[in-house]
Amino acid sequence: MSKPAVGFVGLGAMGFGMATHLVKEGYPVHGFDVFPASVDRFKTAGGIPASSLQESADGKQYYVCMVASAPQVQSVLFGEGGIVSALPQNATLLLCSTVPASYAQSVAAELQSLGRGDIRFIDAPVSGGAKRAADGTLSIMAGAPDAALEKGRFLLEAMSDANKLYLVPGGIGAGSNMKMVHQVLAGIHILGASEAMGFAAQLGLDATKTAEAIISSDSWTWMHENRLQRMLEEDWHPGASALTIILKDVGIITTSARQNQFPTPLCSTAEQVYLSALLQGYGPVDDSSMVRQYYSGPITEVVCTKTKSAEETAEALQLVLDMMQLTNLVAAAEAISFARHLNVDLKQFFSLVSDAAGASRQFMTKGLEMIEGRIGQNSGTVSDVVNRLEKAVQKARDLHCPLNLGNAALNVLLMAKQAGFGAEGSTSVIKVFGN
Amino acid sequence: MSKPAVGFVGLGAMGFGMATHLVKEGYPVHGFDVFPASVDRFKTAGGIPASSLQESADGKQYYVCMVASAPQVQSVLFGEGGIVSALPQNATLLLCSTVPASYAQSVAAELQSLGRGDIRFIDAPVSGGAKRAADGTLSIMAGAPDAALEKGRFLLEAMSDANKLYLVPGGIGAGSNMKMVHQVLAGIHILGASEAMGFAAQLGLDATKTAEAIISSDSWTWMHENRLQRMLEEDWHPGASALTIILKDVGIITTSARQNQFPTPLCSTAEQVYLSALLQGYGPVDDSSMVRQYYSGPITEVVCTKTKSAEETAEALQLVLDMMQLTNLVAAAEAISFARHLNVDLKQFFSLVSDAAGASRQFMTKGLEMIEGRIGQNSGTVSDVVNRLEKAVQKARDLHCPLNLGNAALNVLLMAKQAGFGAEGSTSVIKVFGN
Repeated sequence: MSKPAVGFVGLGAMGFGMATHLVKEGYPVHGFDVFPASVDRFKTAGGIPASSLQESADGKQYYVCMVASAPQVQSVLFGEGGIVSALPQNATLLLCSTVPASYAQSVAAELQSLGRGDIRFIDAPVSGGAKRAADGTLSIMAGAPDAALEKGRFLLEAMSDANKLYLVPGGIGAGSNMKMVHQVLAGIHILGASEAMGFAAQLGLDATKTAEAIISSDSWTWMHENRLQRMLEEDWHPGASALTIILKDVGIITTSARQNQFPTPLCSTAEQVYLSALLQGYGPVDDSSMVRQYYSGPITEVVCTKTKSAEETAEALQLVLDMMQLTNLVAAAEAISFARHLNVDLKQFFSLVSDAAGASRQFMTKGLEMIEGRIGQNSGTVSDVVNRLEKAVQKARDLHCPLNLGNAALNVLLMAKQAGFGAEGSTSVIKVFGN
Repeated sequence: MSKPAVGFVGLGAMGFGMATHLVKEGYPVHGFDVFPASVDRFKTAGGIPASSLQESADGKQYYVCMVASAPQVQSVLFGEGGIVSALPQNATLLLCSTVPASYAQSVAAELQSLGRGDIRFIDAPVSGGAKRAADGTLSIMAGAPDAALEKGRFLLEAMSDANKLYLVPGGIGAGSNMKMVHQVLAGIHILGASEAMGFAAQLGLDATKTAEAIISSDSWTWMHENRLQRMLEEDWHPGASALTIILKDVGIITTSARQNQFPTPLCSTAEQVYLSALLQGYGPVDDSSMVRQYYSGPITEVVCTKTKSAEETAEALQLVLDMMQLTNLVAAAEAISFARHLNVDLKQFFSLVSDAAGASRQFMTKGLEMIEGRIGQNSGTVSDVVNRLEKAVQKARDLHCPLNLGNAALNVLLMAKQAGFGAEGSTSVIKVFGN
């Protein structure tokens, strides 16, 4: 049996990979993008170019929307000559863009009010980066009524890794909420990677060796490993993931946090640094360029004013590792407590994050303890980690190096101490979020 | 009786005013500075130029040190050809520089160990800006043994306003500690003034009218009023108070906070923004240039894309006022709780701040309630102010305007809410600092 035709809009870094993977899997994919060059590139890769949105959707029983933001989704779905008016009866529509849960719910409502309740709509944001998109091994968080999931499941499976397709209970919006709490980690870790490497440069450390040390340590994050090469090569124009993309995701988080009156001090700190960089013109530039907020030249060209002994180098490196690790610890507490506040299934959240772009060694160890209710039982007290982080923060200050996340994390830990948790295990930091 | 000769080092913005005021009062002041131009200027103003540190101190029974930082103090006092070696027996030495309390104590110890315990040493940092320095109406926070205070008092009185000379109990270091907790407010308000004006610019509001509204409202701070003209005129090179000066003071605060393991989230947030600006080359520039971190052009040239109705203008202005007011509320809580933690006399602290550069309407009303133990009794709950601040923060986010302090303050308030204080009066925010 021949595979059904699939309409696709949004052939950016992620969307292009997803669409061309479907082509490789044998689907006739009709792709559209506002940039004609992207459509041409898609044609070269074996896709079927659509000359308009309407053409991409006309008669297609399956449609994937992967544009960048909720306003763009609104325009391509419901604008003049939009997708919804062209889709046939009972078509299945996958929304893979990262949008607020409330927006995904508004799409379902608008379909109903337009008399297009026949369309099987699935809220299905993705994670994993451009490479996994192209390999069809993304993590996908899909929420929808069972009937819709049944119809669209084969397509979700085609784009995701076998064990990275998460059917999130709760219907439309549940997938987006899951993606959002995942992005709390991604949004912090992207800046954290730059902060760690900028701090290392200020310390006069070799960039590549520092990165290797981070990647093989308790300070590891997926983002650090993923962003590293682009950061070292300053491969930023256009790079793989523009600052505006993570800034949009972080905006969804902090807006939702405000609506829920929930504190997200680290994510909000990262957001302000992203906004400062935006003001400096970094919007379209790869987000690994955030290292410039911490060090003004290429980090591979760091010149030590004096030769450090092996011991001095090891001490300096330890400060970077501590800063990164403990920031990631507080990030895990922030993400988990926010997820719990939103009634997100924490076991599914853990499983998802562990295999996706928000992963960190701290989340997978200390985060798991928080999720399983083993809070405050781990070795290493809040006071212990305060002492370690203080040393790193003080050194950065002595070097006049900004350390936005390191300082924000330290202040959260100090508040935990002030609240009387100093002698408990460091996972008790989650208690200041009300957990 | 003729007035005694006074030696003076450090003829910068503040020091020049202080030294020339003493000249006007009839003292023969022998002034020295590393910049010969400053010494020449001092001579033109009637001072006696000293060609070396040694010459400025030789035979002087009274000496005032007003250099910029602890390392400079160390160099001018104890370096080769320094002041201490030139001062006569039983001379009185006023250290008016802002330094860590622990450093002031180390000076006293070093005098002892050098066999110069005869020198009557007074730890006497000042506040009030260049104009009040020149008028002899500074606030001075003096700590020392009674015998030293007795000898130096006439000089302290000559430089300060009659009711702004604070004899701080606790000996050497007590004055510096008092100055430090005062600077918590100054360090936050300086950035707050820029953040408010940059936010207003992003909202398309008229800069002068916004400033007038802030100055005549519950959002008033001394810093806002003081920095305003320079911010409007972009009178920044060299300006009146370089970024490096407040950055040094803030570094003293956060370093001491770490040593005391006390959280200072707003002050630390301000510090990171100052460090970012330093990396951008703003170090020697007037600190009112921090507005550039929020708006990329002159705020007096804000052009509205559309004419706002009076109602829209009032609504936008209210967001700025709320942001400023509630940031100042949390700043007051942070400063007061830190002062209490350091056993600073809170009544004296209140009296000092109210008449000095750290003053704000919020400190003088809500801060007083916190100091007097009337915490949580005021009208306007934590939840109420969260709602108001969230509106402002959300609007800034929609405009892509960084709002570092506004977000940090909101997160502190949200933590207070998570800790269960949402229904209490807004002054209960101090409880998250452990008070």
